[in-house]
Amino acid sequence: MGRGVAHKLIEAHLVEGEMVPGRPIALSVDQTLTQDATGTLVMQELEALGLDRTRAEVSVQYVDHNLLQADEKNAEDHEFLQSASRRYGLWYSKPGNGVSHPTHMQRFGVPGKTMVGSDSHTCAAGSLGMLAVGVGGLEVAMAIAGRPLRIRAPHIWGVRLTGTLPEWTSAKDVILEMLRRHSTKGGLNRIIEYHGPGVATLTAMDRHVIANMGAELGATTTVFPADDAVRDFLRGEDREDDFTELLADPDAHYDVTDEIDLSSIEPLIAMPSAPDNVVPVREAAGEEVDQVVIGSSANPGLRDFAVAAAMVKGRQTDSTVSFDVNPSSRQIFADLTKTGATLDLIGAGARIHQAGCMGCIGMGQAPAAGSNSLRTFPRNFPGRSGTPEDSVWLCSPETAAASALTGVITDPRDLAEKLDMPYPRVELPERSSVNTRMLVAPPPAEEAKHVELVKGPNISALPDFPPLPDRIEAPVLLKVGDDVSTDEISPAGAAALPFRSNVPELAEFTFTRIDAAYPRRARELAEGPGHFVVGAENYGQGSSREHAAITPRYLGLRAVITKSIARIHWQNLANFGILALEFADPADYDRIDAGDVLVLENLVETLPAGSELTVRNDSKGEEYRLRHRLSAPQVEAVLAGGQIPLLARQAD
Amino acid sequence: MGRGVAHKLIEAHLVEGEMVPGRPIALSVDQTLTQDATGTLVMQELEALGLDRTRAEVSVQYVDHNLLQADEKNAEDHEFLQSASRRYGLWYSKPGNGVSHPTHMQRFGVPGKTMVGSDSHTCAAGSLGMLAVGVGGLEVAMAIAGRPLRIRAPHIWGVRLTGTLPEWTSAKDVILEMLRRHSTKGGLNRIIEYHGPGVATLTAMDRHVIANMGAELGATTTVFPADDAVRDFLRGEDREDDFTELLADPDAHYDVTDEIDLSSIEPLIAMPSAPDNVVPVREAAGEEVDQVVIGSSANPGLRDFAVAAAMVKGRQTDSTVSFDVNPSSRQIFADLTKTGATLDLIGAGARIHQAGCMGCIGMGQAPAAGSNSLRTFPRNFPGRSGTPEDSVWLCSPETAAASALTGVITDPRDLAEKLDMPYPRVELPERSSVNTRMLVAPPPAEEAKHVELVKGPNISALPDFPPLPDRIEAPVLLKVGDDVSTDEISPAGAAALPFRSNVPELAEFTFTRIDAAYPRRARELAEGPGHFVVGAENYGQGSSREHAAITPRYLGLRAVITKSIARIHWQNLANFGILALEFADPADYDRIDAGDVLVLENLVETLPAGSELTVRNDSKGEEYRLRHRLSAPQVEAVLAGGQIPLLARQAD
Repeated sequence: MGRGVAHKLIEAHLVEGEMVPGRPIALSVDQTLTQDATGTLVMQELEALGLDRTRAEVSVQYVDHNLLQADEKNAEDHEFLQSASRRYGLWYSKPGNGVSHPTHMQRFGVPGKTMVGSDSHTCAAGSLGMLAVGVGGLEVAMAIAGRPLRIRAPHIWGVRLTGTLPEWTSAKDVILEMLRRHSTKGGLNRIIEYHGPGVATLTAMDRHVIANMGAELGATTTVFPADDAVRDFLRGEDREDDFTELLADPDAHYDVTDEIDLSSIEPLIAMPSAPDNVVPVREAAGEEVDQVVIGSSANPGLRDFAVAAAMVKGRQTDSTVSFDVNPSSRQIFADLTKTGATLDLIGAGARIHQAGCMGCIGMGQAPAAGSNSLRTFPRNFPGRSGTPEDSVWLCSPETAAASALTGVITDPRDLAEKLDMPYPRVELPERSSVNTRMLVAPPPAEEAKHVELVKGPNISALPDFPPLPDRIEAPVLLKVGDDVSTDEISPAGAAALPFRSNVPELAEFTFTRIDAAYPRRARELAEGPGHFVVGAENYGQGSSREHAAITPRYLGLRAVITKSIARIHWQNLANFGILALEFADPADYDRIDAGDVLVLENLVETLPAGSELTVRNDSKGEEYRLRHRLSAPQVEAVLAGGQIPLLARQAD
Repeated sequence: MGRGVAHKLIEAHLVEGEMVPGRPIALSVDQTLTQDATGTLVMQELEALGLDRTRAEVSVQYVDHNLLQADEKNAEDHEFLQSASRRYGLWYSKPGNGVSHPTHMQRFGVPGKTMVGSDSHTCAAGSLGMLAVGVGGLEVAMAIAGRPLRIRAPHIWGVRLTGTLPEWTSAKDVILEMLRRHSTKGGLNRIIEYHGPGVATLTAMDRHVIANMGAELGATTTVFPADDAVRDFLRGEDREDDFTELLADPDAHYDVTDEIDLSSIEPLIAMPSAPDNVVPVREAAGEEVDQVVIGSSANPGLRDFAVAAAMVKGRQTDSTVSFDVNPSSRQIFADLTKTGATLDLIGAGARIHQAGCMGCIGMGQAPAAGSNSLRTFPRNFPGRSGTPEDSVWLCSPETAAASALTGVITDPRDLAEKLDMPYPRVELPERSSVNTRMLVAPPPAEEAKHVELVKGPNISALPDFPPLPDRIEAPVLLKVGDDVSTDEISPAGAAALPFRSNVPELAEFTFTRIDAAYPRRARELAEGPGHFVVGAENYGQGSSREHAAITPRYLGLRAVITKSIARIHWQNLANFGILALEFADPADYDRIDAGDVLVLENLVETLPAGSELTVRNDSKGEEYRLRHRLSAPQVEAVLAGGQIPLLARQAD
């Protein structure tokens, strides 16, 4: 039976376990990726682990999330990250060099390699035929320290592509179609592998768009083959030597299957405020738009900017629209400038920002409350833009540019007809403007040993976490519904993000989008019994930030009880010693109310004995059966108070 | 006796009074300029005044100060300003179109005209032979309402320029030389008029650099002649028809005189943290630099960016330096892109930001505490960068670029010698990329009448201020030293600026850079006796923000007693009903301590009777003689609680 690309990648890196869906496996890790919002903690973890130098083939620290520098904290984070990169042997990508995912693809991605990254969109590297998984920061720290990635073997979901995309549609519409069909939960515990004749019609950067937003489907990762398109891409980046072909066998078997006829795709848009709230653009047409933003890791390629530039060239964006352009990397910005597209964008009234994540992570360009903002970004969770009552839509660059010109949501096909505008077939240069001046190489090991970490006053140490108590008797401080994202647990945005390296300060933002009083109420119990949080489906979806585990833990969260829990957040909870539990009978969710006092007993004995346990609801006089999915080493870590106390104890 | 340019400008606009230094005069106003940080209050004032449509020839509302949009407040301010511009007949320059001063110069400036602007650098328009004065917002509102500008006739300070600037120096070094010679107080109550053969060696944009930073000398304004260089400039902007020649008579008389031989100028730098803390760059050479920023209204021209670009072209900025570029206007950014300079900057590792004031007003690019930041900006008051313990230096683009390459403060002449680098004689295009797509024209009057103001939840109404009490018995809540700037009274920066349209919220930042407890302590007295502030020399220097009067007033400030007080702030205090008093004997400053209880009596009778009055210090059992400089109409306004209550009462 033939094997697909994902299967081959896993086999080539399997160091423990068997490739049976659901079984624990360990994979060797070739590359690591960190960004500034999660990287400061990773560096603090490397320090706590006593690491000398990265053991991965390539480790890169990017600075892309928080570039606003509204006060000194931001610049001090950058100094810390640069010094830590020198100390531990990582490449350092300076602020303004670009978003990690396209930059990594251009400069470091290698077909056939594995990568972990402390960013949920790490999966974008699947565009080059890599197996790239977004994980919590601690797992990246472990990978940097040479440890394998431990996951449950996922199902492989083969999505066969046929046909060719029609004019005025592009890769973004393909992934929006996937989200329309399968929702943000469709990819849970799956690797999505695209195959079939349609794949060859997509460039490597088109595939990046699709692979990147596999994160929004909840997938473990996404892979594409490493074929001629990947070879072309690497040649354009002066790295043809890094190419290795990696194709699915013609008779490859997939655990789950689906098919998309690309020629049937039409312009789609995700309405506020979920990436799977997808409708055809024509169904939303005519809605007034105050802001249009192009850029981000979801539409990072030169083509995506160049198409928009060609559409607005010589035209005027609507007088009430702010048309914002976030170049995704400095190299792409250079190419855009060389081809004249930058000038076309400026001419049409664009605000051109420095290369980085910017508005995608709520660091700037927040829209007015209630006004519609169209973005080529991957996510539109409520408030993620920085505006609590935001109204963010996700679409392709074609739809974004058309709507910027008209001031209302516009299907690009309809604008093209009205203006008699031909579909812009942009000519991309064969060679990129390769320029590594903002990528700082690490010094040799001997020199690196003597580098001192530069820690400004806002760089805290990691808090000490005590072991899990044998008995937890504590109230349910918060009960939440489906799809609570890590943005809601530990918000990003301009107010919170500067404290990403300062757990006590950041903790004050925990859950405040849901309950402004949560930090205060939690703190009152933190030294005593602590508290529970009860969640529903897909709890902790979204970004990989481990802060969403650390800050509630810091405030006394002992256990989360949910119907289901998103993969990366589940792992982060386990890493930081919070019990992640699922209802055996999801109907029990309705039987618990906020304020109920729950009791878990004999944990030291129960947890290692098996996956089942029981929680008593003293307020209701009921009991509910629960399951944990922790492996034996994970149980040990949770009982110890988390991975770091465990490692520290083992080192003693 | 011959007349200079300033004299001719004043005579042509004099509607009341005589041109005798120190005497009150009134000047008709042709143009008005507002920016977003001060403009929201101006619009609220227009609303309070019940204005229908601007009576100035040209009124322009710029959005340049706060472009970060860290949350919804920023975008909501923009919506308010755009709606108010439509309502009152102002041009609206969209966010990202550029810094007001160079943009106004390019698109609206006309030789021989007068202008008031609610921005202290409004004086930059003197580069075109305009008489342009930075004033408080209320005075701009009055000018928009057709009222004349009332000031004391200043002395005219003729500065004769001879010779030609040497290589590696530029206009910035000329104004730094003026600051080195005369300090930030040198221009008080003066108009600086540059004349002599050296003027012709400077382009209009070079003159902008010098006129702009006349604000740092404390001058009322700066003027240059409207000569061939101005004609060339306007031709390049497609506005040759707007040119009128305006030259000084050959035998022009000046009240005060000075001379600069341009050929003797060398690269200069203002050390932290005052614009007049100037030394030759060579004296500071070798200091480590972490950040270099080019841009702002102080070095806005295409030439200033192009010279820096030529210097870094094909080279690499130092690995530990963040090299930030703030294009000053979208049009200049377009030209920079056309000439290839943008690509050179990107190539060398620059972070290119949207066109606007950005870091100059502490809205982004804040440096790490204690690390040196070199900027081509006009100001380096402590904390203005957004970093409380900042270390900001002011220099020319040549010095900035040289230092970005080496990572230490570097005289460009020394780098040129080391690298054998010829001085870049940049070729500027004869015609600019004129593009008005981000300048929104006001609708016709009939349509404008029906425009509704869009007021988001963060747009407060102006507070009501009661009349001045006849007797004030209150403590000195704060005693400060020389040169306290409006940045220290009402800080800009990313935390405060979003509240510029919300007085109660903004008041919480008042004086917090000097005394974090001031807002709380003042509030406790606000409903009761209120309080005094005692200042020393040049109190209230710096920006034109009237918030520095309104927010302490809102917190109960009744009177300021100082040795001397900066012009615009003095006017703002008078406008908002705070008594601005000066010691008859400056030595009395030393006799007062914070906490002393002061008593002013019979104010209703005393103030109109003359400029002298006496304050009793009950804590010390002493009396001090004071002076106010209020005109009769100003006394009336102060007694009424400020201009707005007075106008409201007159309208009743």
